[in-house]
Amino acid sequence: MNKEKPEKIVINEEPWERLVNLIETADPDALSGYLNSLSSLDAVRAISRLDQEEQSKMLVMLEPGEAAHLISEMPESDIREIIEDLNPLHATPIVQEMRSDHQADLLGQLEKKEADAILDSMKPDKAEELRSLMAYPEDSAGGLMITEYLAYDQRLTVNDVLEDMRRHAETYSDYDVQYAYVITAEGQLRGVLRLRDLLISPRNKLIVNLMLKNPLSLNVSSTIQELQHFFNLHSFFGAPVLDDTGRLIGVIRRASVKEQTQKSSNKAFLKFSGIVGGEEFRNMPFSLRSARRLSWLSINIVLNIVAASVIAIYQDTLEKAIVLAVFLPIISDMSGCSGNQAVAVSIRELSLGLLRPRELFHVLGKESLLGLVNGLVLGGLLAAAAVLWKGNPYLGLVVGGALAANTFVAVCLGGSVPLLLKGMKTDPALASGPILTTVTDMCGFFFVLSFATYLLPVLNG
Amino acid sequence: MNKEKPEKIVINEEPWERLVNLIETADPDALSGYLNSLSSLDAVRAISRLDQEEQSKMLVMLEPGEAAHLISEMPESDIREIIEDLNPLHATPIVQEMRSDHQADLLGQLEKKEADAILDSMKPDKAEELRSLMAYPEDSAGGLMITEYLAYDQRLTVNDVLEDMRRHAETYSDYDVQYAYVITAEGQLRGVLRLRDLLISPRNKLIVNLMLKNPLSLNVSSTIQELQHFFNLHSFFGAPVLDDTGRLIGVIRRASVKEQTQKSSNKAFLKFSGIVGGEEFRNMPFSLRSARRLSWLSINIVLNIVAASVIAIYQDTLEKAIVLAVFLPIISDMSGCSGNQAVAVSIRELSLGLLRPRELFHVLGKESLLGLVNGLVLGGLLAAAAVLWKGNPYLGLVVGGALAANTFVAVCLGGSVPLLLKGMKTDPALASGPILTTVTDMCGFFFVLSFATYLLPVLNG
Repeated sequence: MNKEKPEKIVINEEPWERLVNLIETADPDALSGYLNSLSSLDAVRAISRLDQEEQSKMLVMLEPGEAAHLISEMPESDIREIIEDLNPLHATPIVQEMRSDHQADLLGQLEKKEADAILDSMKPDKAEELRSLMAYPEDSAGGLMITEYLAYDQRLTVNDVLEDMRRHAETYSDYDVQYAYVITAEGQLRGVLRLRDLLISPRNKLIVNLMLKNPLSLNVSSTIQELQHFFNLHSFFGAPVLDDTGRLIGVIRRASVKEQTQKSSNKAFLKFSGIVGGEEFRNMPFSLRSARRLSWLSINIVLNIVAASVIAIYQDTLEKAIVLAVFLPIISDMSGCSGNQAVAVSIRELSLGLLRPRELFHVLGKESLLGLVNGLVLGGLLAAAAVLWKGNPYLGLVVGGALAANTFVAVCLGGSVPLLLKGMKTDPALASGPILTTVTDMCGFFFVLSFATYLLPVLNG
Repeated sequence: MNKEKPEKIVINEEPWERLVNLIETADPDALSGYLNSLSSLDAVRAISRLDQEEQSKMLVMLEPGEAAHLISEMPESDIREIIEDLNPLHATPIVQEMRSDHQADLLGQLEKKEADAILDSMKPDKAEELRSLMAYPEDSAGGLMITEYLAYDQRLTVNDVLEDMRRHAETYSDYDVQYAYVITAEGQLRGVLRLRDLLISPRNKLIVNLMLKNPLSLNVSSTIQELQHFFNLHSFFGAPVLDDTGRLIGVIRRASVKEQTQKSSNKAFLKFSGIVGGEEFRNMPFSLRSARRLSWLSINIVLNIVAASVIAIYQDTLEKAIVLAVFLPIISDMSGCSGNQAVAVSIRELSLGLLRPRELFHVLGKESLLGLVNGLVLGGLLAAAAVLWKGNPYLGLVVGGALAANTFVAVCLGGSVPLLLKGMKTDPALASGPILTTVTDMCGFFFVLSFATYLLPVLNG
């Protein structure tokens, strides 16, 4: 029986403590042996607890291939920092062991000086290939494609291909091979070979007679939306990428497109929660974490002060009905909650492609009714609480009415702001929250205090 | 050139309007032709605009295979509702065309009566297979595995296997075939055949001599964490799933595990924003959308009222320094922002497996310093704003000090609440927000108003 279960570690020492000890004893074999005994995830978790100096020491102790495999499982931003921290002399062999799309991603994220130092110590043709990959936007076909693929000249036979596969079995076993491509002597794409067709064909057949002709392909400049569209339309595992002259220059895998989509969805969640500038992990330098969070918070505090200034304007009313001060934060917070629900639905529908920015009126139609009904329910609840507390129906009318009106505003605004931002090519996850909160706070304070001003004579009855 | 670009639609009619027209004319060929001219995404988007009656009419008009393909691209909750709405007579042929894991997922989500009606009209052995698949939790190996795989008796030769593949090429082309499995006459797993090994072997070789022996496998009851662990450790595209007696009963694909992980991450984002009970899309019935959002909001309004009661206790202080009312919502909102950042980082680290619930003190250590520094900065900003506005340094001291203290509380709490909830097997994405907001609101109001009570004599100076 081959049941796979997480191994139990019976010693008391934490894996990261053991790693620190092994790094200090400077015994590469013991270190490598211990790391191999951990799952990737446990290894990553342990490494993320080391400080940068220890991480660098550790990677230098390992074989480059092992080091590359190990860091490939780590969060992108961690990889960048680790590599930046290494001497290019040590970093280059590790980078050379990575897959081409990861190499280009990583080098593109490094400081230009660091990246150049690493590229300059590579073979010139590899460096040139990477420089051209780095020139493509990260979420375009060029940025997502891999250059590890099989391409055969159209004059070869099935046997030639099988011979080549046998000869290079070791190299190709790292490839994600589902198809092989058939090209002209100049590198133009002619057709696609499915591996299962190779299986069941006579070995002397010319591959040009076995291949699927006129294969679909993607241009190197295709955007992520075009790629999603393509893989929605076709159930391929991967597709060939051509340059503007029709030459085969890479392969884009369905998995890479999905991964990129998932990355954006995670980014959206983080930005929506006020984590800006990329992922934050707790092993990052303190000053970076604090500064990034503050950059977001300091914008918010300004917006908050602006919104609260509405209260200052109505200070006279407030002074005469001090009880309202209890309800102002409730109305601000509840409108934020209602609005955020609508924001989340819009962001999700936008990211799934179910909604496009120009469908604003469709969203407004759907949300306005919901805002009205939910507003009446919540307003009713708050009014009831107010009447129960103070026994004054006019107080209930003021705070309940204000919450009802403001829920309507918040829900309509929350549903539409992401569309407007997306239409203006701005990131909806980043800006929707602060815009929503500021506007709904201002409206909410205005509703409560202006209604109260009107009903002031009966409010303290 | 095979450039893939989104087609431009030059007519003014929206795709969903055209669909409605085609459904009304009851011409299946025209409908099917039009749907085929759209990308999956455009088709899904158009269908999501139809009401349920139109959707049902449309699916009944199409070939079952076509209908199954079409709805497979739709959000899960939409599929459930569409199938529930159909007569079992029409639903069964469509469900039969779906992949086994999707069939089991879907049937498991239907009302028991509906599911039974569909199962009863299937072949008994297929129905039995599905009932057993449905018995596994959705995120276990049993729930995620597919039953479309290739398994060959150990006494066969390479040629027998290739013959079978040739004969069933049509059926197998729907399979995600990377490996074939070798089993005993009783169905026990013996080994794994890689397709590329079949390619390069003599055809009279026994597969038992070609297979990789002692293959790794997963037990049917493995949890999603164990599956993630397994695929982190091994770079397979898929792995065989065995029952407790060692019989091969399914295959789990790496892609399914990734998909399930992504699903949880999206769910976390939605719950964190107050969308509960699953995805919400705007084509869902109004009453469902409104009720689900309200279920979340009504808990929040109660918590908000509880938090605001702190203000009511200090009404005397507030009456004597009415200016504080302007700052209460600011402190409540800013503490929420700071706390949510810490929540998001914890949820993300937990979901990546970088953090475990028992590492509470690690998190507290990291967050307390950050809370202190960010608190001092934000408190300083708010104090400055207060002094600029009213020229009273004591007011600055009260509101700035309260914001500083409360930021510290919010950041420590935000970082640790998700761990505590996870440790108690509660969903951190769902409950962290309300708990955080309520506690930080109460603390924030308490800090402002108790500091103010102490400094009251000089506050209006």
